[in-house]
Amino acid sequence: MTLAHEYAQQHHARFLNDLQDLLRIPSVSAMRQEHTADVKRAAEWIVRYLQQIEMHTVELIEIENHHPLIYADWMGAGEDAPTILIYGHYDVQPATMEDGWDTPPFEPVLKDGKLYARGTSDDKGQLMAQVYAVESLIQTGSCPVNIKMLFEGEEEVSSAALHEYVPHHREKLAADVCVISDTAIYTEDQPSIVYALRGIIYFQIDLHGPAADLHSGGFGGAVHNPLQVLCDVLASLHNADGSVNIPGFYDDVLPLSEAERTKLQATNVSEEIFRAMTGVPQSWGEPAYTLSERVGARPTLEIHGILGGFVGEGPKTVLPAHAMAKVSCRLVANQNPNHILKLVQEHVRSITPPTVTLSLQPLGSVGFPSVMGLDHPSMQAAHQAYTKGWGKEPYYVRSGGSIPIVEDFQQNLNVPVIMLGFGLSTDGIHGPNEHWRVSMFYKGIDTAIHFLQEMATIAQ
Amino acid sequence: MTLAHEYAQQHHARFLNDLQDLLRIPSVSAMRQEHTADVKRAAEWIVRYLQQIEMHTVELIEIENHHPLIYADWMGAGEDAPTILIYGHYDVQPATMEDGWDTPPFEPVLKDGKLYARGTSDDKGQLMAQVYAVESLIQTGSCPVNIKMLFEGEEEVSSAALHEYVPHHREKLAADVCVISDTAIYTEDQPSIVYALRGIIYFQIDLHGPAADLHSGGFGGAVHNPLQVLCDVLASLHNADGSVNIPGFYDDVLPLSEAERTKLQATNVSEEIFRAMTGVPQSWGEPAYTLSERVGARPTLEIHGILGGFVGEGPKTVLPAHAMAKVSCRLVANQNPNHILKLVQEHVRSITPPTVTLSLQPLGSVGFPSVMGLDHPSMQAAHQAYTKGWGKEPYYVRSGGSIPIVEDFQQNLNVPVIMLGFGLSTDGIHGPNEHWRVSMFYKGIDTAIHFLQEMATIAQ
Repeated sequence: MTLAHEYAQQHHARFLNDLQDLLRIPSVSAMRQEHTADVKRAAEWIVRYLQQIEMHTVELIEIENHHPLIYADWMGAGEDAPTILIYGHYDVQPATMEDGWDTPPFEPVLKDGKLYARGTSDDKGQLMAQVYAVESLIQTGSCPVNIKMLFEGEEEVSSAALHEYVPHHREKLAADVCVISDTAIYTEDQPSIVYALRGIIYFQIDLHGPAADLHSGGFGGAVHNPLQVLCDVLASLHNADGSVNIPGFYDDVLPLSEAERTKLQATNVSEEIFRAMTGVPQSWGEPAYTLSERVGARPTLEIHGILGGFVGEGPKTVLPAHAMAKVSCRLVANQNPNHILKLVQEHVRSITPPTVTLSLQPLGSVGFPSVMGLDHPSMQAAHQAYTKGWGKEPYYVRSGGSIPIVEDFQQNLNVPVIMLGFGLSTDGIHGPNEHWRVSMFYKGIDTAIHFLQEMATIAQ
Repeated sequence: MTLAHEYAQQHHARFLNDLQDLLRIPSVSAMRQEHTADVKRAAEWIVRYLQQIEMHTVELIEIENHHPLIYADWMGAGEDAPTILIYGHYDVQPATMEDGWDTPPFEPVLKDGKLYARGTSDDKGQLMAQVYAVESLIQTGSCPVNIKMLFEGEEEVSSAALHEYVPHHREKLAADVCVISDTAIYTEDQPSIVYALRGIIYFQIDLHGPAADLHSGGFGGAVHNPLQVLCDVLASLHNADGSVNIPGFYDDVLPLSEAERTKLQATNVSEEIFRAMTGVPQSWGEPAYTLSERVGARPTLEIHGILGGFVGEGPKTVLPAHAMAKVSCRLVANQNPNHILKLVQEHVRSITPPTVTLSLQPLGSVGFPSVMGLDHPSMQAAHQAYTKGWGKEPYYVRSGGSIPIVEDFQQNLNVPVIMLGFGLSTDGIHGPNEHWRVSMFYKGIDTAIHFLQEMATIAQ
C-alpha cells in the first residue's frame, strides 16, 4: 500500500463527513431564482477545501449570468512530469420530497452502506473522490504528476460557461490527459471503461404541401399528402438490413478490429435480456453486429418525433398542409458531424419530390464522436488503476450516448479524455433517492490515486 | 310553358316571402340546449305548409333524443305512375354575427339579387324549392307522379334519426327514384350533375415497440423505432406512380369508359388552376388519369395524421415507445368497403415486422361508393330537367367526397339517387354571409317541376 493510499484509508471517515457538508448545499443549477446563491455557496465550499489541501492556484471564476467555474492547479511534480486535468461538476438536478424521496434530498442519510442525497453519485461524490485522491498524494508528499482541476456548476443545464471558457484558455488548461469521474461502471464488482462515445447531429424536417388543410374527399388523389411524402422520405433512409441509406454515410466509419470485438463481447447482452430490459418483442439492427456494437460502434438515424394532420379522437378526413419530423444521427469515429449533416441535407433534398416544399434545419449543436485507442498509454493507466482498485480487470464499453464536454476537451485541448467513473446505473441519478455506495466512494478514491500514480510511470 | 310552371311564376314573390319566414327560425341542430325548440318550430312550419298544399299524409315524426323527421306523401297519380322520394333537411349550421356576418344570420336580407341568411342554400331554400315545385303541380291538377317526402333536422349533426328510421320503413319509403337538392352546380350558368360519390373506410394504426420511451443514445441501433416502422409501412402502401400498393385493392374498380371520360373532360381543371386553388407546388397522382378523374373516379389511401415521440420545441433524443397514424381509403364503385378493410388489415399485418406490435382499428362506419349509370332513365330525366331549366345541357361530375345519406337510400331502399342541386360552391354554406341567388331559387323550382314531369314520361 502506498503512502497516499494509507493516508486515504486513515481519512475515510472524515472524507465521508466532509462530503455530506457539500451535499447539504442545494446547488440546483436549473433553478436560478431559488438556488443561484446555493450554487455559489457550493463552489465556495470547494474553493476553501482546495485551498486547505494546498493546491498552488485556486480560482473562483465568475462569468456574468453563469454559475461559477473553479480552476485549481498543483504543479509541484516538475516540468518533466505529466499534467492531469481533472473535470467534475458540483451542480445537481432538482429534487424535492414530492418526487418520491424517502428522506429529504439535501439531508444526507447513511443506510445499508449507501449514502442517500442528491448529488452523491452525480457528481459531487465522484468529484470529491478525485479531490481526496489528490489530497492524499499531495499531503503525503508523493504526488508524481502535475494536477489541474476544472469544475463547473452548469453541467445539468448544458455547460454554457464551460463551452465559453475552454476555447479561450487552451494554454492554461493544457494537459497530457483529462480525467472525468461522472459515469457508471458495469456492476458493483466489475469495473468498466467507456472508451468511445457517439457524436450527434439533430435536425428538423418540415414539408409543406397545400396552402391550408384540405378535405381528403375533394382533393385526395391529386394532392401529394405531405405526411405521405414524409413517410416515403424517412422510409428510404434505411436499408432493409437496418443500415442507413445515405450515400457516403459510412465512408469515414472506423471498422472494429477483431481484438476490439473480442473485448466488447464481455458486455454484450443476450436477446432475452435485451427484450426484458426494453420491453420490445424483438431486437433490431444490423445483423453483422452484436447488440452492444450496434449501439456503441455503429452510426444510426433515428426519428424522435413526427407531427402532422389530425391526431385527436375519432376520424377526421383532413389532407394536411404540413408534416414535421425530428431526426438525429448518432455518429461514430471518424465521422465528422458537419460533413454528415451536409450529406443528409443534400440527400434528403435530392429525394424530396417537387410536389412539396422542404425545409431541413439543424437543431442544437453538432457533437463529435470519439474513440480512445485501447492501447493508448493513459488507457493503460486507467486499466491498471481499475485493476488495482477493484482487484479485477475492467470491461471495455462503447457508449451509444454523447457527452458534449468530452468533445470540448478533445477538440479544444487536443487531449485524450479518460472516463474514470465510479457510479452505478442503479444509483438513481436524476431521480428520487439518489445514492452512492460508500464502498464505491472508497474504491473510487483508491482508483483515482492509482490512476495518477500510473500516469507518472507511462512514457511521455 | 306548363300549367305548373305558370303557377310557379305567378307565386314567385309569395314563395320568396314564405321562405324568409322559415329562414327566421334558428333551427341550429348542433346547439340542443339553445335551439331544440327552434328546430321543432321549423319542422312544424314545414308540416303546416305541407298540409296547406294538400299533401295526403303529413307526419311529424318525433324520436326520443332526436330532432323530428317529417314524412309526407301525395299518391294521386295512381299505381302505374312512378313514385318520387324527395329528401331535404331543415336544420342549419350555427351562425352568429361574431363569425363575420354583415347582417344578422336569421334576419333574411335581399341584396343584389341574393337572399342572405343561414340556410338559404343549405338547405332550407333548396328543400322549399322542391316543395314549391310539388305545390305547383298539385295545385294545378297536373302532378303526373306520386310524391313522398322525407325531411330531417339532423343533417348537420350526422343524421342519426334518419339512419335509424330508413331501414325500418322500407315499404313506406319505397320509390322509383330518390331526389336530393342539397348540392352545388358547376357555375351559375352551367348546371351539373353529381353522378358518383366515393365511399370510405377509416382506420387507426398503432405500433408499440419498447415498453417506455428510451434514450436514443443508449438504445438507438438495436431497437426498432416504432416511428420508423410506421414510415416504412405507410411508404410501402403506395407505388411510385401514386397508385395504392395493396394486393386486390383495384380488383373491383369499375373502369372509366371512353364516353364517360369525354363527359368528365368538361369539368377538369388545368394544372395552373389546380395549383392556384390548392397552393401546392405541383399536382400529384396517377399519371394515366386527369386531376378530376384522380379525385372522383379513383380510390385513394390517405394519411390524415401521425403522432409519436417528441414534437415540442428544440431537440430531444427520445426513442418513442409508440407511433400512431390515422388513415382512410376513399373507394369507388364497385369496391366493397368491408372487403377493402379486410384486405388492408391483412396486408398491413403481413408487412409489419415482429420488432413491434400492431393494432389496426376501424374508426367510424364504412361508406359505400356509388355511381349512377349516365343513361339510367332517371339520370336522363335530370338531364332533360336541367336542360329545360337552365337552357343548357348539364356537365357530369364525379364527387370525391362521400354523402352518407345517399348510401342510406341506396342500400336500404335499393333506389337510384339523383343529386338535383341548385346551389353554388360560392354560396358560403357553413360560413358567414351564406346566401342564395334568387335566380337560382326560381330556376330550381322550374327544374324540379321539369324533373317530376320527365319522370312521368320515362318507361317503368
